[in-house]
Amino acid sequence: MKIIVDAMGGDNAPEAIVKGAVQAHQELGCQIILTGRQEEITPILRAEGCTGAQVVDARDVISMNDEPTLAVRSKTDSSLVRALRLLKQGEGDAVVSAGSTGALLTGATLTVKRIRGIRRAALAPVLPTGQYGTVLIDCGANAECSPEYLLQFAYMGSFYSEKVLGCPRPRVGLLNIGTEEEKGDALRHETYALLEKAGREGRICFVGNVEATGIYDGCCEVAVSDGFTGNVMLKTTEGVAKFLMKSLKGVFMKNPATKIAAGVLYKDLKAMASSFNPNEVGGTPLLGISKPVIKAHGSSNDTAIYNAVKQAASMAGSGLIEQIQENIQQMRLETPQEGTQKE
Amino acid sequence: MKIIVDAMGGDNAPEAIVKGAVQAHQELGCQIILTGRQEEITPILRAEGCTGAQVVDARDVISMNDEPTLAVRSKTDSSLVRALRLLKQGEGDAVVSAGSTGALLTGATLTVKRIRGIRRAALAPVLPTGQYGTVLIDCGANAECSPEYLLQFAYMGSFYSEKVLGCPRPRVGLLNIGTEEEKGDALRHETYALLEKAGREGRICFVGNVEATGIYDGCCEVAVSDGFTGNVMLKTTEGVAKFLMKSLKGVFMKNPATKIAAGVLYKDLKAMASSFNPNEVGGTPLLGISKPVIKAHGSSNDTAIYNAVKQAASMAGSGLIEQIQENIQQMRLETPQEGTQKE
Repeated sequence: MKIIVDAMGGDNAPEAIVKGAVQAHQELGCQIILTGRQEEITPILRAEGCTGAQVVDARDVISMNDEPTLAVRSKTDSSLVRALRLLKQGEGDAVVSAGSTGALLTGATLTVKRIRGIRRAALAPVLPTGQYGTVLIDCGANAECSPEYLLQFAYMGSFYSEKVLGCPRPRVGLLNIGTEEEKGDALRHETYALLEKAGREGRICFVGNVEATGIYDGCCEVAVSDGFTGNVMLKTTEGVAKFLMKSLKGVFMKNPATKIAAGVLYKDLKAMASSFNPNEVGGTPLLGISKPVIKAHGSSNDTAIYNAVKQAASMAGSGLIEQIQENIQQMRLETPQEGTQKE
Repeated sequence: MKIIVDAMGGDNAPEAIVKGAVQAHQELGCQIILTGRQEEITPILRAEGCTGAQVVDARDVISMNDEPTLAVRSKTDSSLVRALRLLKQGEGDAVVSAGSTGALLTGATLTVKRIRGIRRAALAPVLPTGQYGTVLIDCGANAECSPEYLLQFAYMGSFYSEKVLGCPRPRVGLLNIGTEEEKGDALRHETYALLEKAGREGRICFVGNVEATGIYDGCCEVAVSDGFTGNVMLKTTEGVAKFLMKSLKGVFMKNPATKIAAGVLYKDLKAMASSFNPNEVGGTPLLGISKPVIKAHGSSNDTAIYNAVKQAASMAGSGLIEQIQENIQQMRLETPQEGTQKE
């Protein structure tokens, strides 16, 4: 497996990125291509004693402040665009980047292209619930969605949970504000009917509407959402977890007795906190793109990059994209303009 | 101050409801009217040694499974409808109910009516952030919203934070999926322009788009949202808090040493958990109704009802509704059909 890593994307680039990639190369045996400024990458590789990684020079860097579409079109010699182009050309099996989410999404759509028939690519992070986690799809790629997009997200999330996370029969829920069928807005009503039909035909295991509280009780392995709501759910998760950990710290530091007590619990608490830590969890796949692309968190350290590379390799070897391609007819609504629609 | 309490609403009715109301009567000196089945309420009052509370008999009960509009229209002798009718007639200053949210909202709108000019009432719970908390408005009353609704929510949330929570200059943010002005969907773009104008004119203190992570960092005292997204944020908060507390318990019970350590921290941890506990926080105001109506959590115990009655009294004495009425012209968009629009 050969993973292409954008060495210049993210807050801790290039050092943490290169280190994480080297670790994956050494421990998992992945082949690695690093894109970015050669003179910055090579010394890190040398310091790590790594001779097996390939470097593809790219002079430009897309920053978090760049407007995504403009950046992807104008900065063609950036580490991000270069990585995606190598993937398109078949020089590697997957791309990992901790750079701008918007630019990665736009670049992947323009360069690598979507799977034929998929209307929109989606961000699908995994929430730390139950045995297999819950794939929350979409999570910010598409603020405005149609029922057909959500139908496609349901299939793609279900296939990802099955093929990459190993859940034998992922339960798919529609994120809503109540579990009753009639809850929510017009988008939810129309999507419910589509998912219910897919469930009835045995194509996915649809369990109906789910609430965020239910998701954290482990009621489903896939939660389908428009990107706006999904993004708010993800950021609320992050916000509450951080807020509670901070409060916990306050309790621990209160006096000498609490400090000693905290010391006893420290290791286990750290493990608990790490399940909400993006650095530990790895990356977020962009589902719907014709080859595997993984977005690592912007604040990724080397462990996070290691995990993201591992995830990319696992996704590349899973047969996920082939499965989406084989089922594409079930994931499309027939519309009059279908024949002429631009992919 | 005289507070009307729906004694039959909620999982623990009537016992916890009556006890909580009695406690408020005794400790805060509120006058209390309890609506519901006299033969069930009176023995609890007697057991509590309370002779000062008034009971208004109502034979029917609206359950969580009743369809709200139908229930409000057909169950006219229910404790909930009776409570709202007493409020309308001026027999009391506010209503507290732990019954069905939908029925309370519908009943309040039909019976007590909205403030003239307010398009929709909104649920506005307070998230436990910073010094004054953050009013999250709307949180489930309106799954689909127009920019004008959101403008009105912004004003009402700001006035509530100021008058009831005591924040001298509430910062108002628009819940979005990024802080940049162009983020989000069409609803957010149009609302942003309205809030920005209200901010520029010095009517509210608009701080721009906010993310859920920012809200938990304490970046604003009011977060404006459509009811769908707000509801997902609220339930995610509840879900994550519960999930983390459960994980924490697992860490504590691991072995004898962790159990002892947990014992040392117990009291402070409990206080921390209670900030996310609906029983401690009190109730959620229905803003936009012409008199104060407070929805207490369905699982309210007596402490929760006590807190909700206290909150109702504070809201009734705050001048909030008068302030909304005085500013109604700023909160309306001029539309051609304005003159003929039914309130």
